[in-house]
Amino acid sequence: MDVADRAAASDGAFDGAFDWGLLEPAGADGGGLGDDAVLAAMIAVEQGLISAWAQLDGGAAPRVDRVRIDRDALRDGVRRDGVAVVDLVRQLREQVGDDADRVHRGATSQDVLDTALVLASRDALAAAGRELAVAGRALAALADVQRGTPVIARTLTQPAEPTTLGAESAAWLNAVTSALEALGGLAYPVQLGGAVGTGSAFVRISGREDAPRLLRAALARTLGLADPGRAWHTDRSPVLSIAAAAGHVCAAAGRIGRGLAFAARDGVLLPEHGGGSSAMPHKKNPVDAVILIANGLRAGGLIATLQTASLSFDARPAGEWHAEWQAWRGLLRLAVESAAVLARATADLVVHAPDASQPAPDADGDTAPDTALAAAGAVVDPALERFAALEGPERADRQDRIGEGV
Amino acid sequence: MDVADRAAASDGAFDGAFDWGLLEPAGADGGGLGDDAVLAAMIAVEQGLISAWAQLDGGAAPRVDRVRIDRDALRDGVRRDGVAVVDLVRQLREQVGDDADRVHRGATSQDVLDTALVLASRDALAAAGRELAVAGRALAALADVQRGTPVIARTLTQPAEPTTLGAESAAWLNAVTSALEALGGLAYPVQLGGAVGTGSAFVRISGREDAPRLLRAALARTLGLADPGRAWHTDRSPVLSIAAAAGHVCAAAGRIGRGLAFAARDGVLLPEHGGGSSAMPHKKNPVDAVILIANGLRAGGLIATLQTASLSFDARPAGEWHAEWQAWRGLLRLAVESAAVLARATADLVVHAPDASQPAPDADGDTAPDTALAAAGAVVDPALERFAALEGPERADRQDRIGEGV
Amino acid sequence: MDVADRAAASDGAFDGAFDWGLLEPAGADGGGLGDDAVLAAMIAVEQGLISAWAQLDGGAAPRVDRVRIDRDALRDGVRRDGVAVVDLVRQLREQVGDDADRVHRGATSQDVLDTALVLASRDALAAAGRELAVAGRALAALADVQRGTPVIARTLTQPAEPTTLGAESAAWLNAVTSALEALGGLAYPVQLGGAVGTGSAFVRISGREDAPRLLRAALARTLGLADPGRAWHTDRSPVLSIAAAAGHVCAAAGRIGRGLAFAARDGVLLPEHGGGSSAMPHKKNPVDAVILIANGLRAGGLIATLQTASLSFDARPAGEWHAEWQAWRGLLRLAVESAAVLARATADLVVHAPDASQPAPDADGDTAPDTALAAAGAVVDPALERFAALEGPERADRQDRIGEGV
Amino acid sequence: MDVADRAAASDGAFDGAFDWGLLEPAGADGGGLGDDAVLAAMIAVEQGLISAWAQLDGGAAPRVDRVRIDRDALRDGVRRDGVAVVDLVRQLREQVGDDADRVHRGATSQDVLDTALVLASRDALAAAGRELAVAGRALAALADVQRGTPVIARTLTQPAEPTTLGAESAAWLNAVTSALEALGGLAYPVQLGGAVGTGSAFVRISGREDAPRLLRAALARTLGLADPGRAWHTDRSPVLSIAAAAGHVCAAAGRIGRGLAFAARDGVLLPEHGGGSSAMPHKKNPVDAVILIANGLRAGGLIATLQTASLSFDARPAGEWHAEWQAWRGLLRLAVESAAVLARATADLVVHAPDASQPAPDADGDTAPDTALAAAGAVVDPALERFAALEGPERADRQDRIGEGV
Repeated sequence: MDVADRAAASDGAFDGAFDWGLLEPAGADGGGLGDDAVLAAMIAVEQGLISAWAQLDGGAAPRVDRVRIDRDALRDGVRRDGVAVVDLVRQLREQVGDDADRVHRGATSQDVLDTALVLASRDALAAAGRELAVAGRALAALADVQRGTPVIARTLTQPAEPTTLGAESAAWLNAVTSALEALGGLAYPVQLGGAVGTGSAFVRISGREDAPRLLRAALARTLGLADPGRAWHTDRSPVLSIAAAAGHVCAAAGRIGRGLAFAARDGVLLPEHGGGSSAMPHKKNPVDAVILIANGLRAGGLIATLQTASLSFDARPAGEWHAEWQAWRGLLRLAVESAAVLARATADLVVHAPDASQPAPDADGDTAPDTALAAAGAVVDPALERFAALEGPERADRQDRIGEGV
Repeated sequence: MDVADRAAASDGAFDGAFDWGLLEPAGADGGGLGDDAVLAAMIAVEQGLISAWAQLDGGAAPRVDRVRIDRDALRDGVRRDGVAVVDLVRQLREQVGDDADRVHRGATSQDVLDTALVLASRDALAAAGRELAVAGRALAALADVQRGTPVIARTLTQPAEPTTLGAESAAWLNAVTSALEALGGLAYPVQLGGAVGTGSAFVRISGREDAPRLLRAALARTLGLADPGRAWHTDRSPVLSIAAAAGHVCAAAGRIGRGLAFAARDGVLLPEHGGGSSAMPHKKNPVDAVILIANGLRAGGLIATLQTASLSFDARPAGEWHAEWQAWRGLLRLAVESAAVLARATADLVVHAPDASQPAPDADGDTAPDTALAAAGAVVDPALERFAALEGPERADRQDRIGEGV
Repeated sequence: MDVADRAAASDGAFDGAFDWGLLEPAGADGGGLGDDAVLAAMIAVEQGLISAWAQLDGGAAPRVDRVRIDRDALRDGVRRDGVAVVDLVRQLREQVGDDADRVHRGATSQDVLDTALVLASRDALAAAGRELAVAGRALAALADVQRGTPVIARTLTQPAEPTTLGAESAAWLNAVTSALEALGGLAYPVQLGGAVGTGSAFVRISGREDAPRLLRAALARTLGLADPGRAWHTDRSPVLSIAAAAGHVCAAAGRIGRGLAFAARDGVLLPEHGGGSSAMPHKKNPVDAVILIANGLRAGGLIATLQTASLSFDARPAGEWHAEWQAWRGLLRLAVESAAVLARATADLVVHAPDASQPAPDADGDTAPDTALAAAGAVVDPALERFAALEGPERADRQDRIGEGV
Repeated sequence: MDVADRAAASDGAFDGAFDWGLLEPAGADGGGLGDDAVLAAMIAVEQGLISAWAQLDGGAAPRVDRVRIDRDALRDGVRRDGVAVVDLVRQLREQVGDDADRVHRGATSQDVLDTALVLASRDALAAAGRELAVAGRALAALADVQRGTPVIARTLTQPAEPTTLGAESAAWLNAVTSALEALGGLAYPVQLGGAVGTGSAFVRISGREDAPRLLRAALARTLGLADPGRAWHTDRSPVLSIAAAAGHVCAAAGRIGRGLAFAARDGVLLPEHGGGSSAMPHKKNPVDAVILIANGLRAGGLIATLQTASLSFDARPAGEWHAEWQAWRGLLRLAVESAAVLARATADLVVHAPDASQPAPDADGDTAPDTALAAAGAVVDPALERFAALEGPERADRQDRIGEGV
């Protein structure tokens, strides 16, 4: 009996699903980016296009966002057509009845899937931003409180010079702030260009030469996305920008994960609630840090795939576009999960401050410990200010803006 | 309402599952490598270890491979412990009753998950081998029949010299044969080392110094895997070897996908049944070729992740091991799906042979077309022989062996 | 005789050099980013730090930027210390004489190398921006002139709908504009933090608590870089941002390279001066397009390395930092070379306009060709305006600003 | 003055060279894989083809392997033709005089460059194998001597169970043995297919239908490479196999580098001669370990590039082939440098054995330390045997074979 047979013989509760979290330590819900969430975003785009048409020509605006989708048929369609949108449109049209021709009017599959993934990106990175802000506040507090707690800074594994736990926390905080800045710089553009990017079917159907521009603007408004002033079907720079921002989140979280892992190794910072072991029941593992590192290590390969897939051609390439989907969603998932795990990790730390009176063995003797510790403490305030500047005086209000990546 | 809310509001049939195929064009079933399949393999390893212990000490061998698993609890455990095995062992032990201590005896999480992924690799790559063999036979027939059909070979996009459709097919066949050779060279080793790779708990529990060696050999025998003579918990060469072989499959299928896509572009080879378009209902797209290319482009990033994760440390690293899981399974999925799509693609081709009397525009004038076509035809037979040598005189028998990667 | 022996036996003109361009098709000079250029930047940073100190304490400011460097000793030092800066400082100090202690005062190797690579990034991406602007003007002219020239747009390799050569050129122009926008968003921050990022030696030597801040600001001013308000020794977000921008350049150039390669394949746009062939002397290959594609394919792997290396730890990690150097410089080299090749490629095109009276075979019949062509032509103007907006009314002045990425 | 100007103003000793080692810590000579070495290999292939023709038709065999190459002209040719071979052939023919037509007879650029890179691969990986064997012997001795020296094994950063320094060294040795096995499994095939892979010009020139096969066999014999029985111009499996083997070397060395770095961090194993610091003169850094880790982290991105570039098309693709060169050579360089650094690192270790009487803090209490240490010691012998089996009873003789990867 091979693996597939074994699976078939097992409990069928998940029949039809690939993956439900067995190998994804961070995410009990796939980071809110499961296939159902992406499907919902695709339907939201179709609904948005219906609405945009109604704004243009005053025609009917049938509802498609509450229909029941036959996922088995959708999967058959994915395999047959290479993309889910063809069968999705068929299903939506079937259920809409007389207004079927108002669905997916003049659009192409790429319009729907690209825009759906941008919607998913906006929501996922907004969630990541909110979690990063939580983590940032925890790290800011840690840096503030521990600004004078001496630890030995290491370079190339060796003891180098006295620093403080607060200065180390400030370096972590700076990474969080950098990631928030990267998120804040993102635009989330709608994609709408029709079959070959020129919107010709919008013109033909409406009889208006400005229909491509008007529909794109209306769709952007409806969905709360930016209007990029063009179709970017073969200019994948928006995808690369989103990927880079997600990469910043994974890098910041992964870098702090490394820091927490070493702090746990050295016994300086330990998780209050660690994870268990199947071999050694009493162990308390820094599982959050481990996940942050793992996610950080996984991001580069996915970014490489998106970079390679950006070499588009024709009006829709044979494979490069299709290669993007899982890498794009996967990268968002890593970012939002990393941010959430980071928020929890930084809320679950116990400081085991080393004895400050201990001399630093082997450390550089040129700088007096007092000077070194004072200098280390002095890096904390600029880090707190840099983070606070992102949060602003109207904290709650700005917080939302950070979260929304605006 | 953001994406997650939309998903929550939608049909709940897939509640709890991340991914069921929406963004994975090739695989209605996740390539037989869904989480349920991996879970089944993990349970098979636990059962195998129980059996190995019974062979060692003649004790009880409770059955754990038909128990009902609480996946929600498993997912909570994944998040808590960073790996599913801890909670899986708890569930298995609960259901076994008095013999609970015979479950997971002396083993560690990595033993179970690594060996389960090797089992999944063996089965997936065996399936890939069978599909590649089917594709190879189709390509062999194509090369044979079309060995004299003239087409213009291009280099750097420009017409270069006359060749034949058969010679091009023979080049594709050679890629298939190379991938089959790569699969044939693989070993699939069991992993069993206990908490830190030394098997000390096996010794302690059994009172026998040779217990680590005997249990490993028995587990390998039970599961039909190789005994590597050591624990490879921090020597990830078996993972890299499996990844490289899967990469060969994706490369071969992707390279042929590119060939089929260009042949469809030029109108020389078209799919009999192409995929549809949401914008242009009458289009017949070479969807199989598109998927092969997309999967080929996705493989490199996953291999990069595994290569990076191979820099292990301690007796189990903080993150590098965890970073492997999804990349490893994902790469197998790409390989098995690519092979299956290739088998279908090569069975669905219609030749639109160009007019052989046409002069080759701009082609090199130095070689007479007759000589060029004869030379092209001559590359077919060695390619057929090279493929046939893998299949052997006892075709059916050998075929299984190819499939099983022995 | 093995390869090394053969090399030793060959002409010794390049003794001591690894690479002089044999395998790098685009760059006769390594993109202006050879080791000598990076060494010059490192010395400029050391000189800048000397100047910053003189501004702080009014002391001596010896010149180190005209000294003769012993590269053999430098290489021995690289191998011994793992970084060139240690021996470079030794050489600089030796030649400065009495003011030796003014050299590299309080700084660490990472300060010098990171800042030098930022300097190299600024200059390389400024050059890339200038070349992109040249290419953009050529593409703008092409789009303008050919806005009505009909060609068949393809999707998934198949004919889809009529478009125009101008609309295709406008899509390429949009990719250039996107890359210019990505460059324009970059900051180029100085790095100065001393041994462990706290600047403690600056405090100790100067006796001033504000020395770290003042020296960093002065160094930034002297070198024309940004003052980031912190040390980013372990927060690698500046590196990731620069890498992402370079990736945008490679993506834009690579995507246009694919377009030019297909246009050459179809005979619509051919290079006026193509490259030769060793087998077929009369061939005229679209070498520029080929290089653009190759460079585009090479970028992803290097970005993946930088992403992985961003998981820093301690105050300087054991390997992650060192893994960045060649990937960082290599990516800049790809970007600047791609931009330069793109500028030449777009200046070397001959349009072989297809006969506009030809019917579009197999294309979608729903949209009348006239409507489709009009819609296609309509995408040209927004693309011209988007590009022109970056160039602005004061073209020459703005052009510099684009080039400088400000 | 920008970076390029600074470089121009600096000492001109390296004019014309990109890179001479400034950013490559491991390699004072580019791992014996500099451009001169690759050029020498290309000339060796041209010479081998001349010799193969002489064996076929008894004609002249002019010497081309001692000619002086004009590297500036070669670089101009690289930029013009996209590959160095076109101009190289021109230079070789010029100097040969009357027998000029015996040079590069019927061959194409890819034949020469692919075969040259296979030659370079064979020699580089043979050198890597010899260095790995040296490192293996050092690790075997370390494992043997330290088999009873207790240290605490960690998992997920936390103390897990007692093990011995010998057991850890045995795990490192196993990684070396795995890499040697990977090297031993490689074939190094010649590439010879003419303009489009069919060898038609060989037939036309010789008037013999079997000329492609005979010339390929003779070239393989002359160069000491394998005859693959086909042209693999578009089946890049030989490149992927070589890359995977190089990846195994980088992984083994990188994994041991991590081990040595942690051992240096913990003070258990320190380098006798460490590297210096520009900020802290008295530090002794484990530079070898750092380089091993850095190289290990750099390998994945290059392998990803080769995997992506394996999606070939036509008879020579527009860019994919060109994208391979630097990644291929770069990966070999990492492998040979890593192996050499590993050999030196393992010869430069000083054991600071921890006090065996120390209790293992926080370690699992289930297994008595004595049992754990005995079990750990027991893993040493199988590792020694596994390594010795590769070296065999006829050590010197087998050693060469390991080195040569036969």
